[in-house]
Amino acid sequence: MTDARIPAPIDPPARLLMGPGPVSAYPSVLRALSAPLVGQYDPFMTTAMAETQELYRAVWATRNEATLLVDGTSRAGIEAAIVSLVNQGDRVLVPIFGRFGHLLVEIAERAGAEVHTIETDWGQVFPVSAIAEAIERVRPAVLAIVQGDTSTTMNQPLDEIGELCARHGVLFYCDATASLGGNDFEADAWGLDAATAGLQKCLSGPSGAAPITLSERAVEVVQSRKRIEAGIREAGDPVSDRFVRSNYFDLGMILDYWGPRRLNHHTEATSMLYAARECARTIAIEGRDAVIARHRLAGDAMLAGVRGLGLEVFGDVAHKMNNVVAVEIPDGVAGDATRQALLDDFGIEIGTSFGPLHGRVWRIGTMGYNARKDAVLTTLAALEAVLRRAGARVAPGGGVDAASDVYGGAA
Amino acid sequence: MTDARIPAPIDPPARLLMGPGPVSAYPSVLRALSAPLVGQYDPFMTTAMAETQELYRAVWATRNEATLLVDGTSRAGIEAAIVSLVNQGDRVLVPIFGRFGHLLVEIAERAGAEVHTIETDWGQVFPVSAIAEAIERVRPAVLAIVQGDTSTTMNQPLDEIGELCARHGVLFYCDATASLGGNDFEADAWGLDAATAGLQKCLSGPSGAAPITLSERAVEVVQSRKRIEAGIREAGDPVSDRFVRSNYFDLGMILDYWGPRRLNHHTEATSMLYAARECARTIAIEGRDAVIARHRLAGDAMLAGVRGLGLEVFGDVAHKMNNVVAVEIPDGVAGDATRQALLDDFGIEIGTSFGPLHGRVWRIGTMGYNARKDAVLTTLAALEAVLRRAGARVAPGGGVDAASDVYGGAA
Repeated sequence: MTDARIPAPIDPPARLLMGPGPVSAYPSVLRALSAPLVGQYDPFMTTAMAETQELYRAVWATRNEATLLVDGTSRAGIEAAIVSLVNQGDRVLVPIFGRFGHLLVEIAERAGAEVHTIETDWGQVFPVSAIAEAIERVRPAVLAIVQGDTSTTMNQPLDEIGELCARHGVLFYCDATASLGGNDFEADAWGLDAATAGLQKCLSGPSGAAPITLSERAVEVVQSRKRIEAGIREAGDPVSDRFVRSNYFDLGMILDYWGPRRLNHHTEATSMLYAARECARTIAIEGRDAVIARHRLAGDAMLAGVRGLGLEVFGDVAHKMNNVVAVEIPDGVAGDATRQALLDDFGIEIGTSFGPLHGRVWRIGTMGYNARKDAVLTTLAALEAVLRRAGARVAPGGGVDAASDVYGGAA
Repeated sequence: MTDARIPAPIDPPARLLMGPGPVSAYPSVLRALSAPLVGQYDPFMTTAMAETQELYRAVWATRNEATLLVDGTSRAGIEAAIVSLVNQGDRVLVPIFGRFGHLLVEIAERAGAEVHTIETDWGQVFPVSAIAEAIERVRPAVLAIVQGDTSTTMNQPLDEIGELCARHGVLFYCDATASLGGNDFEADAWGLDAATAGLQKCLSGPSGAAPITLSERAVEVVQSRKRIEAGIREAGDPVSDRFVRSNYFDLGMILDYWGPRRLNHHTEATSMLYAARECARTIAIEGRDAVIARHRLAGDAMLAGVRGLGLEVFGDVAHKMNNVVAVEIPDGVAGDATRQALLDDFGIEIGTSFGPLHGRVWRIGTMGYNARKDAVLTTLAALEAVLRRAGARVAPGGGVDAASDVYGGAA
């Protein structure tokens, strides 16, 4: 360290993370993160991997054998799914209803796909008829769609799309990063071929591991493109000429590492595995449906609360995710300065926004550990205080009262 | 969870990890992992990112501004470097002296490079003349080489290669995953343009974050290929037609996230950042050169110890990494059963091996936190016991005595 002083041990300030994610981790997840490391083929490790797979089958509501983690953030999971399913020149259809639809386009384009899109206004979702019409027109190899797009807070209904895709021989991929664990998701019942997520939203862990699940049909596609790497390749191992352009994201090889063959690929991120396992274990203990119901209740309370303060809400609220709401910044209030006051004076973080909504709305989340009555009421009380100090007209106690009523009815 | 019982909280068995990695984490790193999360643009977070960059400049011995983490395991760092530096059709030269040279070939081939290789026998390194000859013959855009290949334990001298590369306009990339922190490494003095590593070897943290450093020349190449993603792209932002085929590994965008623009890309893996910061902080406190010297001493002691037991060592010992030794499995001893006995009866893990060495050698590491006298002596005492019980002839006390002598001389 030339001249620089050595910084102190990490010691984060108190924060209540009520933005669109990342959010606060479950305390049990923080404890799991500090567990000692073991070797990558230690029986304890391979057992922990298998337990994690089974726990995530429950989270995804699937029987898919190919349910595992990609070692990276949620967009690592997205890229692994897309580059492993999509061959160069394949047609991919992406319905875009917010920023993360554009991300799917971006990743598919970089992978060499012929990307077709349909778009709807921010704050809306697609009727299934619009998706059906596009599938029939484009005849894609893959439909790639976001379930919950935090940029707009919308939750795209998916329950009728799987059947459409199956009828037209289309692989159905969904990015459920922002929604999984806090909203209904039924991988098998909805006919998903691939779905990916991250830990840092409703699963309430740190960013850095990406749960993924693949149907048998998706596994067939992935395996047909497998190219076991030089250095561990043996005579008779397949080398497809349509091989995946990435080694790190070649799901065929990652499946061999997680499967009974335990073929060396990366060195599994042990601490993040512990964290991912504990996120899903915490959900299993409370019960998956109970966790989703807790998110719905917290989301309803926050929605009632911000309206109780006299604030307007952006978008088609009937299709809002449970875990985030977009609140219009009142005229005359400086959005970023008010967010900063909330952070500095109350230790509460809420979110800014992207693209057409930048400077127009705040995004307030109620996710994972923080989908709790005390977190909702504390945030509303603090928001009222900073808005009043910013000169806005707010209904005194209106936020806390309205949210309490929602909770009262459910108590 | 349909019928499955919910597994218990993670509770790993006691393990002394003396294999080729992953190895045990520094206790302070496990503590850092359990620190609470903060938002990705929280001033605390961006400060922690900047501190981490500065700490890794010291680890790499560089002034490179572009010193940061890739969110994934060590091979995520390798792939990020290669796909961001190498255009389709570029010539890449890879000198192969073990398994991980083949991995560099694999990743470069998948990225569309025209890959040229030279090879040497396992257990040897290249003389600089062989690399010079190959550079002049191939005229590559990039030279990609492993520093320490755990598959053979060899440590390739790099100090004269940077000048060669600079003279021929070749970008000089090194994978230092297995060696960084336990062996000499001088990114600037040796003229590296790019180097990557992982935490799970001599840095003594969990797998899952990949330190990387890029020279100004490498940054120019990376920036020239940048394509800011749709969804956050603004008028005037560059979109190169030689764009990187990966979004996740586009170092130009990752640099914008770590740099003053703080342009949203992935959500930084907060807990892994804390861990990576603490690995480098622990090294800064002890002193980088002192940590390398501790690895050298532990490696010398382990080498003397296994020889003191009467075991043979594989490869050109003069070019062995400090942190791992390959020990020939004695005739008549079952390699895997003996390793298993060491794990089951003593809680000590040593490594098996790959490719031509499979079944022929064990790999014993002395890395990070476990590059310690007590870990070395405990491993040698236990190895003596399991070898004797396996029917091998070993010199009683010969391992501990020889290793103690090495430590004695340095005390």
